Amino acid sequence: MRDDLSIHFAVVGAGLAGSLLAVYLAGQGHRVDVYERRADPRVAPPDEGRSINLGLSARGIGALRKAGLWDAVRTHTVPMRGRYVHPREGRPFFHPYGRDPGEILHSIRRDALSRTLVEHAEKLQGVRFFFGTPVTAIDRDAPSFRAGGETVTPDVIVGADGAFSAVRAELLRGRPADFRQEFLPWGYKELHLPYTERLEALHVWPGDQGLMVAHPNVDGSLTCTLFMDHHDLARPDLAAFVKSVLPAADLPDLAGQLARNPVGHLVTVRTSKWHEDGRAVLIGDACHAVYPFYGQGMNSAFEDCVVLAECVEARPDDLGAAFAAYQRRRKPHTDVLADLSADNFLELRDRLRSPLHLARKQVDTVLSRLLPDMWRPLYTMVSHTTMPYGEALRRARKQDRIVRAGGMTAAVGLAAALLWRRDRRHPK
Amino acid sequence: MRDDLSIHFAVVGAGLAGSLLAVYLAGQGHRVDVYERRADPRVAPPDEGRSINLGLSARGIGALRKAGLWDAVRTHTVPMRGRYVHPREGRPFFHPYGRDPGEILHSIRRDALSRTLVEHAEKLQGVRFFFGTPVTAIDRDAPSFRAGGETVTPDVIVGADGAFSAVRAELLRGRPADFRQEFLPWGYKELHLPYTERLEALHVWPGDQGLMVAHPNVDGSLTCTLFMDHHDLARPDLAAFVKSVLPAADLPDLAGQLARNPVGHLVTVRTSKWHEDGRAVLIGDACHAVYPFYGQGMNSAFEDCVVLAECVEARPDDLGAAFAAYQRRRKPHTDVLADLSADNFLELRDRLRSPLHLARKQVDTVLSRLLPDMWRPLYTMVSHTTMPYGEALRRARKQDRIVRAGGMTAAVGLAAALLWRRDRRHPK
Repeated sequence: MRDDLSIHFAVVGAGLAGSLLAVYLAGQGHRVDVYERRADPRVAPPDEGRSINLGLSARGIGALRKAGLWDAVRTHTVPMRGRYVHPREGRPFFHPYGRDPGEILHSIRRDALSRTLVEHAEKLQGVRFFFGTPVTAIDRDAPSFRAGGETVTPDVIVGADGAFSAVRAELLRGRPADFRQEFLPWGYKELHLPYTERLEALHVWPGDQGLMVAHPNVDGSLTCTLFMDHHDLARPDLAAFVKSVLPAADLPDLAGQLARNPVGHLVTVRTSKWHEDGRAVLIGDACHAVYPFYGQGMNSAFEDCVVLAECVEARPDDLGAAFAAYQRRRKPHTDVLADLSADNFLELRDRLRSPLHLARKQVDTVLSRLLPDMWRPLYTMVSHTTMPYGEALRRARKQDRIVRAGGMTAAVGLAAALLWRRDRRHPK
Repeated sequence: MRDDLSIHFAVVGAGLAGSLLAVYLAGQGHRVDVYERRADPRVAPPDEGRSINLGLSARGIGALRKAGLWDAVRTHTVPMRGRYVHPREGRPFFHPYGRDPGEILHSIRRDALSRTLVEHAEKLQGVRFFFGTPVTAIDRDAPSFRAGGETVTPDVIVGADGAFSAVRAELLRGRPADFRQEFLPWGYKELHLPYTERLEALHVWPGDQGLMVAHPNVDGSLTCTLFMDHHDLARPDLAAFVKSVLPAADLPDLAGQLARNPVGHLVTVRTSKWHEDGRAVLIGDACHAVYPFYGQGMNSAFEDCVVLAECVEARPDDLGAAFAAYQRRRKPHTDVLADLSADNFLELRDRLRSPLHLARKQVDTVLSRLLPDMWRPLYTMVSHTTMPYGEALRRARKQDRIVRAGGMTAAVGLAAALLWRRDRRHPK
């Protein structure tokens, strides 16, 4: 029951989004109980082999900074200033993310980020965590659920329980709501690479039969994610196949690592029902799981926390209106992110080989150097700004139309000529 | 357990597809128990206000004929030889479905068809119906479920339990399978119209804010289905709104009927998982619910029964292979049907008003009269043949390309001229 306008939130899932939301809501004076079926990340061994490492970008950093958490998180990060591409043949090369030194990503291990968030949230008044406590028998009407042998009856249930959310399933049950889940034919395996040289970059081994990315860790090692068709991941000769497909990826004990680590699935989830009449609401993967190929899953989940907290703060007396406003503000943009993330898989797999596509990227780069205030590549807007995803896409499409209307070859030639002249006038 | 190659099927859902499948499987000597949570349709009062009446077309009739049921069913049908269109203004007009007298649909009440199927199936050796018996605790691995206070352990569970199938939910649980459900923003209400004049036609009241269709019943009355945006169906002044939107639809006690009858939802369902390793399989709406605007939901469900029975007959020793073959043969075509059904909603709502669209339809009609063996409108192929849906769409697209390449105006002119000459040469 509510005391003044202090609301009792029960958050299902103490993952990244659930923990950060607890910080925001506690900051508004609300009571927040967070239930998590897994063990406390501060005592449990890290869940090896299952966590794609994370790249914090402007959106996620903004949300952490707003919660006063960025300084604590930052100590666990390694900056990634661009991509270090390992082609199938030839020497590896470095490609910076952006023009500005600020246009970088920050690599962090999921468990390190999770521990930092929980540690901080638990110190706040009104926040309690219940680890090793699965939630069952969720009732969207009461609202209530069973946890730890008791019936919990909060004011609001928050579903922060991931792509296969049980809270979402209860909101959708028997309801005329649109729902869609799509699995990529490719899955992934996590691999480890002790590295001698510390490089501040996201490593990429591109390929159309398999591709690998690697995030740097603070200890100088790399956490690699191998993406490959599920049929290939099930091959008995997987290690030999990986070596043939990605000859530039030289991993120690490859066969052993491949045999030990589980196969992960990649899913896109969309639902038209994000909330239930002021009594339940979803955040993060629970309402919009995306493929990891744009590196925006966690960043967009953190944006959810900011927007949901703003909406609750604006209408604590009418949570139905608050949650509806939250969905209206977020869903159009997370829908765009789902499309962009699926599209970026095709880019990594197929398009990086197309000369026309690479020429188009070059035009973008050149134009953004010539017209820094007017022209920004889509990747820059998604990864290095907090511009809503839908707005970023709209601008990128407009830029595309300009390039196409002008004729790509002419644009490339003109831009290159101009750039060449400018560089000559302002020698570095 | 199997005795020889007699298989024990437990069908969940004694609707139209479940009952027809029981006939087919019993015909192969298998044991079939059919569980249905609703009451026996032969003793229960008809479920007024909820059943869009049905139009049996070539596909459904073929399946019934093959099961030896068409003669029994036919006595309950009224032929529909075309559409009787009631425009907003002006006199109603009749538009035949096809060139041939055989190109007609057969209107039947859902409850009459259901009773006939159950009656026939129950007489067959090996078939048992359990009405008023909900199925719970489905286990796809055993396979097993609870029903009537007992645990049932068949060889195969058949999910014939409709668009919100519990069997499907169990097959999808925790699985990397694609799934999608989409609700139309429009819903429906069933209405009744005692009619004086017996017309062998599907009545249509077209409109972009609401449209109504009506199926003739054997007693001369019409069962009408009013389709309208859910927002409008919730209006307090709904009766007045219906009268303003569909002035040509003159229904007795409209306000009373609208108040009494529930609002129905329209859903498209797609799933990539139609079966579970020889132990469970889905048919009809459970694996491919479609909007009703092409009148093919039941007809395609009956086609499922034919194909599934053929696959079981071909591989009774390897049901995993049989069910995989069934999905391979059916899913590409039911996917096409889902698209066609959604598209036909737009046709009824918007396109029937477009002169260009109507001209294109006219070209189709004229060309199909000139070239009866080569040219058939898409509607004809879907509704009056048993050509797989995907094949029908492929041919229709080819025809479209020809018309577009030739230039529509030229084609209309030429075809009309040719037709005019032919008609002059062969006066009727």
